Amino acid sequence: MAEIVRPAPPVSGRAAYHAVDLIRAKRDGVPLTGDEIRWLIGAYLSGEVADEQMSALLMAVYFRGLDDAELRAWTSAMVDSGERLDLAAVGRPTVDKHSTGGVGDKVSLVLAPLVAACGAAVPQLSGRGLAHTGGTLDKLESIPGWRAALPPAEMVDILRHIGCVIAAAGPGLAPADRHLYALRDVTGTVESIPLIASSIMSKKIAEGTGALVLDVKVGSGAFMRDPADARLLAQTMVTLGGEEGVRTSALLTRMDTPLGRAVGNAVEVEEAVATLAGQGPADLVEVVLALATEMLRLAGLPGDPAAALADGRALARYRDMITAQGGDPDAALPVATHTRTLAAPAKGWLMRLDARGVGEAAWRLGAGRARKEHPVSAAAGVLCLAKPGDWVEDEQPLLELHTDDESRFDAALAVLGNAIEVGPDRPDEQAPVIGRVGG
Amino acid sequence: MAEIVRPAPPVSGRAAYHAVDLIRAKRDGVPLTGDEIRWLIGAYLSGEVADEQMSALLMAVYFRGLDDAELRAWTSAMVDSGERLDLAAVGRPTVDKHSTGGVGDKVSLVLAPLVAACGAAVPQLSGRGLAHTGGTLDKLESIPGWRAALPPAEMVDILRHIGCVIAAAGPGLAPADRHLYALRDVTGTVESIPLIASSIMSKKIAEGTGALVLDVKVGSGAFMRDPADARLLAQTMVTLGGEEGVRTSALLTRMDTPLGRAVGNAVEVEEAVATLAGQGPADLVEVVLALATEMLRLAGLPGDPAAALADGRALARYRDMITAQGGDPDAALPVATHTRTLAAPAKGWLMRLDARGVGEAAWRLGAGRARKEHPVSAAAGVLCLAKPGDWVEDEQPLLELHTDDESRFDAALAVLGNAIEVGPDRPDEQAPVIGRVGG
Repeated sequence: MAEIVRPAPPVSGRAAYHAVDLIRAKRDGVPLTGDEIRWLIGAYLSGEVADEQMSALLMAVYFRGLDDAELRAWTSAMVDSGERLDLAAVGRPTVDKHSTGGVGDKVSLVLAPLVAACGAAVPQLSGRGLAHTGGTLDKLESIPGWRAALPPAEMVDILRHIGCVIAAAGPGLAPADRHLYALRDVTGTVESIPLIASSIMSKKIAEGTGALVLDVKVGSGAFMRDPADARLLAQTMVTLGGEEGVRTSALLTRMDTPLGRAVGNAVEVEEAVATLAGQGPADLVEVVLALATEMLRLAGLPGDPAAALADGRALARYRDMITAQGGDPDAALPVATHTRTLAAPAKGWLMRLDARGVGEAAWRLGAGRARKEHPVSAAAGVLCLAKPGDWVEDEQPLLELHTDDESRFDAALAVLGNAIEVGPDRPDEQAPVIGRVGG
Repeated sequence: MAEIVRPAPPVSGRAAYHAVDLIRAKRDGVPLTGDEIRWLIGAYLSGEVADEQMSALLMAVYFRGLDDAELRAWTSAMVDSGERLDLAAVGRPTVDKHSTGGVGDKVSLVLAPLVAACGAAVPQLSGRGLAHTGGTLDKLESIPGWRAALPPAEMVDILRHIGCVIAAAGPGLAPADRHLYALRDVTGTVESIPLIASSIMSKKIAEGTGALVLDVKVGSGAFMRDPADARLLAQTMVTLGGEEGVRTSALLTRMDTPLGRAVGNAVEVEEAVATLAGQGPADLVEVVLALATEMLRLAGLPGDPAAALADGRALARYRDMITAQGGDPDAALPVATHTRTLAAPAKGWLMRLDARGVGEAAWRLGAGRARKEHPVSAAAGVLCLAKPGDWVEDEQPLLELHTDDESRFDAALAVLGNAIEVGPDRPDEQAPVIGRVGG
């Protein structure tokens, strides 16, 4: 039954998507199309693309990066995987702040009520802390009665009446990001600038804010240790925000030593309240005012944040916000059952008090969690009794360690061995705000 | 309860292995230690390291490679994951051949009995074919009664009495490789030279052969299209073999056009038998003799393979081997129910007959499988009626397509459109053996 035929034209293109083809394309440096990326994210959520395929793709993205079009498609696909809040009913300009995470970073607790006091609405949806940098929700949960979980309608109501809310991002916001982040966390694919950018921005875009200021931390205690990486991350997020209709800018701020003096949960709430009452440490106040100025500028509002901090309007707004979320702003906060003091090893200038070391010590004392389902201790933490640039005497107390579990001291002390340096030279003063991107 | 303490020394090193730490180390270019690699392979087999972690690690290996020490540890860990055959009872020098896979590659069917006829024992344990290159076991299974699965004792017995066996590698040989290969196949991490080298060599080392000649194919129809990559793969495997006590060398052979004229299963058995009877196509004979010479050299045996092919000793050995494995060497082989002929598109020299195109056509006609659990058609395949360098007339038949399922012709013809080139210039003759590595 032989017939004579001529060759047919070649089949070209992909008839349908196969995960392995897309992984190989990305691996080999071939950009993925928007349709391919949307299919990947959707098929991952539906289970058609397996965890082991997505993790291989994520590692390929780690090495190859994502170009602008890929990054935008990836981010939109994550936004579109869930709901997008509509904050029109709030009735004032909305502007949020996101920090990439630092040690002693209680900025949100001061900043949100401060900017609200100046006329904007700050819809701050946060995640939980992991590792050594802690989380804003964990800090606020040391206030008796305070609730992180709010239905969207209640959140909008608080924003309309008080102007600020700090709440847990619900499971309906960018669910693809939640799944991808959990996968990245166990597969060594967290540290990728486009993946970090899309993770942060997808949640902020879904949150519905009109404007956004990013606090990109740089230094030993930050996720980004290298200023060039931090600037690239900032630029990537600023561009993404603009493309998605969110006016976005970024400040690069220093994170080589803890911000302020308190590192933990209740101890940071106390320092935030002191700052709202005009008694804040200089570095924290400087970062808060720089971010507030930037937020108000993006929101198109006049307003003098320094005045709002000085005259008690910001503190009043903070008390209203805590009360609206079920908390008692006058309640006593938990106090640790055990404390120890770590002394200066010699006389001299405190040259270095390493943010990462102090953050890890606080984490080991119970202030942070090793797994997301673990609880944190409200009382655990570290107080810095001296800061770099201070003169210290031999045996002078430098750090005060707080915990509810005495057995944790040894592990905390072990990570502090390398964190402290006392020497003969007074270190240069370093401005906490290093640079700005976009806006 | 405050006490004064001094900082403790820092904790250094890894107390225990965590998959994510090892993935990040590899990702960042830090070599893994032998202990870390052995732990990884073992923990992956036990389920402690998850598929998504191993696939991320494999993708990091794709980008970072493995250095010599890592590759050796990785390979030994795969060997040690299963049993290692002891071929001492065979009573003659053992030497095997492994091909990286080509189109029309029926070399093993001729080579194993030929080298056995010259005094060596060839313990050829093979896998199944996937994709367009087919598999030796699939080819032999077109012989009625022939069995690929042999208990180790029976294999040793056949080797002792006949000198060659071609059988399925049992599940006890390098089981880690089987699991890793399945994972690589779906995660875009197959194409990594160290991973390919360790996959091949772990099975050959576990097989217990004393010497090994690698046939590393290069060209459009081969896994390695670039000669530099092929040479690097060859060198990597030769070094690994030497380190593990297996005398190893490699030939680089051309795979731009099918080897011989038959591509499929039964049709390749017929061509192999013709070759054993002294009627083989020149390119196939040249590759077989070059490999046989190399194998005998490594086995330390004299012997004239050309003579053993010419005088019928190799054919007799082949018939004994088929019979010992339950096959009938005189049985009629399956014949396809449908054939079509593909004609030359013009008059001229056949400039190119692309191995990959022909291989994919045979695969689409039923000769190969899309998934490892699929059966193959014994009768399906392609016969090349002309080869590059031949003069062809317009409408002269070039290819004969065989299948049991008429609906497959269109898909096969579609991939042949780009595979054939007829032109005014006679192509240069190309020697099938390009180079040699090691030995």
